[in-house]
Amino acid sequence: MGRVTESARIRTVRVREGTLYAGRKGDRVAVEEPLDIRVNGQQLSLTMRTPGQDIELIHGFLHAEGIIAHREDITEARYCDGAVVDDGTGFARNTYNVMDFTTTAPQLLPLVTKNFTTTSACGVCGSESIDAVRQKGRYTLEQGWSLDPRAILAAARALTGQQAVFARTGGVHAAALVDRTGNLLVVREDVGRHNAVDKVIGWALLEDRLPLADCFLLVSSRASFEIAQKAYMAGIPLLACVSAASSLAVDTADEVGMTLLGFTRAAEDGDGRMNVYTHPDRLDLSGVEG
Amino acid sequence: MGRVTESARIRTVRVREGTLYAGRKGDRVAVEEPLDIRVNGQQLSLTMRTPGQDIELIHGFLHAEGIIAHREDITEARYCDGAVVDDGTGFARNTYNVMDFTTTAPQLLPLVTKNFTTTSACGVCGSESIDAVRQKGRYTLEQGWSLDPRAILAAARALTGQQAVFARTGGVHAAALVDRTGNLLVVREDVGRHNAVDKVIGWALLEDRLPLADCFLLVSSRASFEIAQKAYMAGIPLLACVSAASSLAVDTADEVGMTLLGFTRAAEDGDGRMNVYTHPDRLDLSGVEG
Repeated sequence: MGRVTESARIRTVRVREGTLYAGRKGDRVAVEEPLDIRVNGQQLSLTMRTPGQDIELIHGFLHAEGIIAHREDITEARYCDGAVVDDGTGFARNTYNVMDFTTTAPQLLPLVTKNFTTTSACGVCGSESIDAVRQKGRYTLEQGWSLDPRAILAAARALTGQQAVFARTGGVHAAALVDRTGNLLVVREDVGRHNAVDKVIGWALLEDRLPLADCFLLVSSRASFEIAQKAYMAGIPLLACVSAASSLAVDTADEVGMTLLGFTRAAEDGDGRMNVYTHPDRLDLSGVEG
Repeated sequence: MGRVTESARIRTVRVREGTLYAGRKGDRVAVEEPLDIRVNGQQLSLTMRTPGQDIELIHGFLHAEGIIAHREDITEARYCDGAVVDDGTGFARNTYNVMDFTTTAPQLLPLVTKNFTTTSACGVCGSESIDAVRQKGRYTLEQGWSLDPRAILAAARALTGQQAVFARTGGVHAAALVDRTGNLLVVREDVGRHNAVDKVIGWALLEDRLPLADCFLLVSSRASFEIAQKAYMAGIPLLACVSAASSLAVDTADEVGMTLLGFTRAAEDGDGRMNVYTHPDRLDLSGVEG
């Protein structure tokens, strides 16, 4: 696991029928480390993340903010000490936390402000946040497909099986890109759910797969505005989250034409359920009962 | 619930023994709205939060960042349209998302940079993040007390009962300040766990209760570096989280002398358990078995 988990010696305390029991054991915790994101030497953001796939993370982050559109927009990615590290194949050489990206599109840099979604006007509100995202968006979400809810539940089940870091620590979120038959294309885990999403979308950008019109995004967490924004920017027509969706995630999905699912819960025996907040037309409910 | 929850008409989909069932129902989602935080007219941060207790939230946020120390540091808090709103007693008048704080301590403003925890040096790492927090801290954490783990579990049980927004939406985190006997002093909920913590600490600051040497902080979520930072800045000697702790939360707690508990799980029948990552001396384990 490299820098992804760390061992810890802990005390355990239990109460059973009023009696205290204590013990000691070895445990593993998910690693959280700062990542200083720079573009052309200028610091853009400092985020806490689980090390690994930093190049994907930063590509995904810059894409979600509307700063880059294609992998060609970045000519160089290097850790600040000068070492070029490709962390797509392992964590061994990923020992640094400051990464500088060189962009060939310097005219985009004025877009980078300290608050990406901010507006200078008084009266900022949810609908203005949605407008700002729509203005940044490059893709219209694909309308012409639907998928069987059972494929979504199968993917949720498969994701649980692939959450290797979660299984060891219970302390990270996962995101996955899934094709229409329910196959997981890529899975990433991180202490920050937004980072996990940036990593999978950054992966897709580096694979020249954007817009992700044929995929859906599955997240182990709740769906916030930020997660809906990232999915929309990548052209993803359906977002399925394991937990709840916020009001602004629902409103954003509604306005941009995205199908938003919450409480996507798949039992091991094949049963399951989901709530459909917006645009149910992408779910194939033919032959449905009840 | 005012602006705290919103109603939604949703579709439900279920799979049972391979068969699809669909329905419709009314549902409630947790509200997420932007809050534009300004100090002396200058924008500091734009955060997504659940409306309500914005004044507490901003006090807590500014305190955690080391920008203010006392309630007297803020002379005026007003929504940008000029209305002065005290939202401590209800949500009725809290219809705005831009809030300007006036500080009498303008010499503190240079501390406000676009990335609060950043360092300009290459080689940013977890231990530098911890050093930065220690430099901002004003309080040494109280050493001379211990409490019965059963009081912590009782508080966790009580918190579950008081998570009103969570009960309706499943979509918010909770934070509570708890005294040494396990009584909840204040509970706040928010779509962002950091906001929930800012709200309870902001409440305490406004009540002139800092440092919170006699309290512990209970959060329904995981413990990240950021949560440990906020607790430390408020002088809270013990942090109990319901989910996992990250490596940097553990390292921070270890270095500043904070007791950090994870997986604090309380069953309704009185049983329960917790993992103790750091400084177990504040748990009274006298008469412990096993």
